[in-house]
Amino acid sequence: MRIYLAGPEVFLADAAAIAAAKRAICAAHGLIGVFPLDPPPAAPDPALPDWLRIYWANEAHIRGCDALIANLTPFRGPSADAGTVYELGFMRALGRPVFGYSNIAQRFAQRTLAALGGHARRRADGAWEDGEGMAVEEFDRHDNLMLEGGIAAAGGSFEAAEMPPEARWHDLSAFARCVAAAAQALGVPQASSTSSA
Amino acid sequence: MRIYLAGPEVFLADAAAIAAAKRAICAAHGLIGVFPLDPPPAAPDPALPDWLRIYWANEAHIRGCDALIANLTPFRGPSADAGTVYELGFMRALGRPVFGYSNIAQRFAQRTLAALGGHARRRADGAWEDGEGMAVEEFDRHDNLMLEGGIAAAGGSFEAAEMPPEARWHDLSAFARCVAAAAQALGVPQASSTSSA
Repeated sequence: MRIYLAGPEVFLADAAAIAAAKRAICAAHGLIGVFPLDPPPAAPDPALPDWLRIYWANEAHIRGCDALIANLTPFRGPSADAGTVYELGFMRALGRPVFGYSNIAQRFAQRTLAALGGHARRRADGAWEDGEGMAVEEFDRHDNLMLEGGIAAAGGSFEAAEMPPEARWHDLSAFARCVAAAAQALGVPQASSTSSA
Repeated sequence: MRIYLAGPEVFLADAAAIAAAKRAICAAHGLIGVFPLDPPPAAPDPALPDWLRIYWANEAHIRGCDALIANLTPFRGPSADAGTVYELGFMRALGRPVFGYSNIAQRFAQRTLAALGGHARRRADGAWEDGEGMAVEEFDRHDNLMLEGGIAAAGGSFEAAEMPPEARWHDLSAFARCVAAAAQALGVPQASSTSSA
């Protein structure tokens, strides 16, 4: 079984090392991890511009996988990386299991209010809104409700951990819990307790 | 033909007025606009928590539509609203046409660098990265390449306009261009030039 490893780690200088570490955790659970930067199943049209070839490669990777694990750690704002979120929605629509994790555990409303700083204000009904008059989502979720909603609808799970900033993009403990959950959901036989200890 | 109107306008206090204005533009092009806050085709399980009932309602709306137009105006950071991006990926995976627009025209790399302020730095190869060592995407696109990639893959189009801040969440000229493109892509007969003038 193949798992698509969605996340903004593609932007790290040591993306290849993270990919290898994630693949190793998948392999320990009997799964094949597929990183966005891996060679795609079929080479996209070389006449296309770089960005569109990358798009088609990632779409082909997702279609070729049995499940997806998304790194939903907030990225340059209160929400997760846009590319990762797109891929989460894409895989959910394919009807396959999706999982998510974050190395920041604070909830969406609190992160959003912190990011807005002094620009948040109360509406007459008590709800928070930003300086442009747009409400702050307060459902005690990790991010916009569509993300955890899709994970729940797909029978997946969401794992959060509170990591210090220097470990935020490299710690894989929450990711490993997602891999274990994915292996179980996909019915992959697990290694014996001796070898996995 | 039904068009799902994805976007963060659901967070506006006057969301109902925006929904009505968008529906009217759709109707002028022979299309039925479906707003996320519309009553869903089937009522979600009332035993579910609010956030999950909203998720299921939106997913049902998307499944019941023939195309999607996403408001990808940057939302509280360099990228579009996460819920909207999720829905864009979802509809693309269903294989139906998707369109997008933004009322901020500045490109993703420039917006990201502006948001990072003094925290951006150059790698040895000249590429920009943020203070956490993550590269700034520089493909001269509107947002993460997966968003416009999905729109291009689906045969849709992306429309950008530069609106002043006070018109950012209410101007519908770029949206109207998407509706016209969607009507054409879906083969909806257009009103005569007299009545549409």
